[in-house]
Amino acid sequence: MSDYRPPLDDIRLVLAEISDLAAICDLPGYEHVDPETVDGVLDELGRFVAEVVAPVNRIGDEEGCSVTDGVVSAPEAFGTAWDKFVESGWAAISQDPDYGGGGFPGSVQTVLTELLATASRAWSMGPMLTVGALDALHSFADEGQKETYLPKMVTAEWSGTMNLTEPQAGSDVGALTSRAVPADDGSYRIFGTKIFITFGEHEMTENIIQLVLARTPDSPPGTKGISLFIVPKYLVNDDGSLGERNDYRCLSVEHKLGLHASPTCVLSFGDGGDGAVGFLIGEEHQGMRYMFKMMNNARLGVGVEGLAVTERALQQAADYAIERRQGRAIGAPAGEQSAIVDHADVRRMLLTMRAYTDAMRCLLYLNAASLDVAARHPDSDVRQAASDRAELLTPISKAWCTDVGVEMSSLGIQIHGGYGYIEETGAAQHWRDSRISPIYEGTNGIQAMDLVGRKLAMNGGAVMVDLLAEIAGLDNELAAAGEAFASIRKGLADALAATEEATGWLVANGLNDPNDAMAGATPYLRMFGQLVGGWLLARLALGAQRRIDAGEGDATHLGTKVVAARFYAEQLLPIARAQMGAVMAGKADLFEIPADAFSA
Amino acid sequence: MSDYRPPLDDIRLVLAEISDLAAICDLPGYEHVDPETVDGVLDELGRFVAEVVAPVNRIGDEEGCSVTDGVVSAPEAFGTAWDKFVESGWAAISQDPDYGGGGFPGSVQTVLTELLATASRAWSMGPMLTVGALDALHSFADEGQKETYLPKMVTAEWSGTMNLTEPQAGSDVGALTSRAVPADDGSYRIFGTKIFITFGEHEMTENIIQLVLARTPDSPPGTKGISLFIVPKYLVNDDGSLGERNDYRCLSVEHKLGLHASPTCVLSFGDGGDGAVGFLIGEEHQGMRYMFKMMNNARLGVGVEGLAVTERALQQAADYAIERRQGRAIGAPAGEQSAIVDHADVRRMLLTMRAYTDAMRCLLYLNAASLDVAARHPDSDVRQAASDRAELLTPISKAWCTDVGVEMSSLGIQIHGGYGYIEETGAAQHWRDSRISPIYEGTNGIQAMDLVGRKLAMNGGAVMVDLLAEIAGLDNELAAAGEAFASIRKGLADALAATEEATGWLVANGLNDPNDAMAGATPYLRMFGQLVGGWLLARLALGAQRRIDAGEGDATHLGTKVVAARFYAEQLLPIARAQMGAVMAGKADLFEIPADAFSA
Repeated sequence: MSDYRPPLDDIRLVLAEISDLAAICDLPGYEHVDPETVDGVLDELGRFVAEVVAPVNRIGDEEGCSVTDGVVSAPEAFGTAWDKFVESGWAAISQDPDYGGGGFPGSVQTVLTELLATASRAWSMGPMLTVGALDALHSFADEGQKETYLPKMVTAEWSGTMNLTEPQAGSDVGALTSRAVPADDGSYRIFGTKIFITFGEHEMTENIIQLVLARTPDSPPGTKGISLFIVPKYLVNDDGSLGERNDYRCLSVEHKLGLHASPTCVLSFGDGGDGAVGFLIGEEHQGMRYMFKMMNNARLGVGVEGLAVTERALQQAADYAIERRQGRAIGAPAGEQSAIVDHADVRRMLLTMRAYTDAMRCLLYLNAASLDVAARHPDSDVRQAASDRAELLTPISKAWCTDVGVEMSSLGIQIHGGYGYIEETGAAQHWRDSRISPIYEGTNGIQAMDLVGRKLAMNGGAVMVDLLAEIAGLDNELAAAGEAFASIRKGLADALAATEEATGWLVANGLNDPNDAMAGATPYLRMFGQLVGGWLLARLALGAQRRIDAGEGDATHLGTKVVAARFYAEQLLPIARAQMGAVMAGKADLFEIPADAFSA
Repeated sequence: MSDYRPPLDDIRLVLAEISDLAAICDLPGYEHVDPETVDGVLDELGRFVAEVVAPVNRIGDEEGCSVTDGVVSAPEAFGTAWDKFVESGWAAISQDPDYGGGGFPGSVQTVLTELLATASRAWSMGPMLTVGALDALHSFADEGQKETYLPKMVTAEWSGTMNLTEPQAGSDVGALTSRAVPADDGSYRIFGTKIFITFGEHEMTENIIQLVLARTPDSPPGTKGISLFIVPKYLVNDDGSLGERNDYRCLSVEHKLGLHASPTCVLSFGDGGDGAVGFLIGEEHQGMRYMFKMMNNARLGVGVEGLAVTERALQQAADYAIERRQGRAIGAPAGEQSAIVDHADVRRMLLTMRAYTDAMRCLLYLNAASLDVAARHPDSDVRQAASDRAELLTPISKAWCTDVGVEMSSLGIQIHGGYGYIEETGAAQHWRDSRISPIYEGTNGIQAMDLVGRKLAMNGGAVMVDLLAEIAGLDNELAAAGEAFASIRKGLADALAATEEATGWLVANGLNDPNDAMAGATPYLRMFGQLVGGWLLARLALGAQRRIDAGEGDATHLGTKVVAARFYAEQLLPIARAQMGAVMAGKADLFEIPADAFSA
């Protein structure tokens, strides 16, 4: 088992070269932030996650959690880490200063999300869900609600959740049937059963703020009839003290493949008889709109999980590859075993993980930076363009990074050989933990449909066209950078041409029969992710080379970025073009097989 | 949870179209076997595995196994199924009639391996290892040893193991240090610790025959100084009754990611003081040669595991996709939820699993058939050619199928959405169980090095050239088959051209610096596997179409083979060409990064 190291050099480089942190700090409202402040924050934050959060990761996996009479037991270490998280003040760093937050840009929140998730995927689910709930309240709750709930959630003294799923309503949220009955005092009484509620019940915080989707009486069917409610575990008195326990309970926690210590709860509302007390957020029937509005942040956060498991798996695998000796590498002296890092095939796996890690971080940070610009830039056209860019990138951030995260944590196991299959090694945990991210917060298939069905069509296709043009625009810079960048230039041009052609096909054919476009949505997302990853790695490598040429920074560290970009462009990026057949095949073969003929 | 169904129609079709079962039954020594006999055997065998073996799969995962004072407890259901396996006589079906076997071809053994592993991956480890040990004894033990051990192993009354690995000697078998000291009576006393011993200790059979690699005194270092020994758990008296317990014990069983009920043991030999009694097999210092000889069978068996998890995962996912209703499919009537099998993206996943399942089965059965011909054909040239073909295909069977198995069982989880992440659903178990197969019996990286380093060079490259020529030779048939096969023809020609070019590059460059070839070995194996899969699917589809045209068989079932081949050729096969950059990049980028610079 290796010690976790916060990858601060990598983070700093991407913040500078891809996020353009300096420009973000210049946005209105960030007058108190500059890159140097962020630098200092990163040091402290890195120390915090390494010392406090990382050590609970294995413990959580081994101990898991359970429920007895509605009380959920999670590992004690999880609670202790949470207490320290509250004390440290890190939870508040990017939150609204009006409610006690630090007012840093969302880009810094993304770094926080990454570091927490890299240190412990399971533990970080709590803070992550709390931020999601907090975003929804901040955007749509009324002032009184905000004053009641936000200050305690900003500090993470209270945690938050999202209650969407019901047994018959998973991806199909509109099928939910939980009821919200109006009470005389303007509040509601909630009845129904919710499943898969992350951190839905636990003892780590003194209160839990459940956000619950439910139907008011005589609502229209489907998503149009859904409203969003605040259902606190303990009702909050006017003086802010905690009052009565609300009428819901945890019936069970799931026995999951991974994230063992993140309680995934079945919650029953209104079992006690009178219904759980709920408070309507915003307007009736607008629940789905509110949810969608905050999804961009949440999906970006899930994308970060793909990066996080890969980063952690890479650290562990790289340490093992240096330490473990087996066989004799080609050219090594006879009579002793070589470190396995000296074998070409092990290096291939490590460099694949290295390149994807950098590519994912670039994509996710660019997405986060776009959201920062969209929120704060003084020019409304710039804001709109950044918002569009963020919307286009979000399904790729979510789906591409989480698919890659599963693949890369699998390589992490492979590098460990037989020891990778033994749970105590810890490599398998990353893989198990990684596997939920392609599923929740909209399955990756749904992300692909969002990309093809909605995002390609934005502004009559202009958002996509703009991005492809920007990628094409890097060609001049790559040409000027000389021979070391020649294969990057070639690989990028090839993947870009393939993506342009595939995009054109989807736009043309999606108009005739949407299923022709949907049949190719998942391979198209992979293609697009692979291209964007290559583009951003090339930008990162150009920046790294500039620094090397200027004699700034650590030449070894910067040099790996150039090698990783080249390796990716030559060896991993061709997967983009290989998707063309699948993107442009249409639905025919898929629907030629009767439903019951797929298997024996 | 879905019920397991033995995929007999698929198996029969591949036996007829790819294995050429009729020709195998015509080989000398198989006079008592014909395709009709095999047909009847399949029915009975399918019933047996569905009724007896499949039900223990979940139980094993949930109960796992443990060790107390050297006694290993596995689930009771595992022992009961083993007893029935012995009673049924299935274990013996392909074994030597001289020792009580049924004398069926190895191809039938491969079907047995598939069905057992599909029914329960963990349980099937016991019979599989027993066959491996049995093969080694049958090939290299002396007549007395054979008479002592084979009859009871043929029936599976006694189980067998392979003891290779030690903590410092995993992939690097030559580094093992276990000692074999000659005793006065011609036997040896074995000392040392072996790890990762599958079914190394258990109570399911009355005796366990350990085959152990160890060094005799003054042996040369490395693989040249290793000898192979029989170390029975209970010594066998001259009358065949069981005598004294041998001097080794199980120190622990591993806590693994999957295969929970397959005991993976640490065995300590000679702890008691005098050493474990061992009997030399064949000649001293020939242990590695004996091991390698039997590896082809064992690696083929591991490849079958990739097929098996995919088949089981596909059955479960297909059932779920028909039953689970979510959302409204494009074109479906308003007001009700559609079965998720009606969504294009779910169909894409199912058809991907379907196509790879067929492709793997074709490859594995062709490999098995080649071994049958190699063993029995009257013409020595034909035997040699079949043996060469089997040797070439074996690393692809092992590595390609097991990598694909991990990918496909992951799709099985994805189709289940959130429920896929809950252990009770059972989809996650297939994925966990699948993950060891790319690691053991020679990691997939080692398979790739074997393919590039040894197999490409066989007969001066002629074995590979012959296979590529045979693939090219299908072009005429595909051309004659008309429009429905046009895209298959095109896809295959493209992948073949890419593979030919990559092969030429590897042969040319591997001579200069082996690391240039080794750097591309894994992507080359993927490329080659993808090509061979497409070739065999095309052959299967041609056969299916011939049957459809002749009005033979189930047109729906046969039609899926044509669709699957087309889908694969258009949408999955392009991955072959996408490997070219990686195959032909050489070692430069991999070795430019200092060992300690891969991660933070």
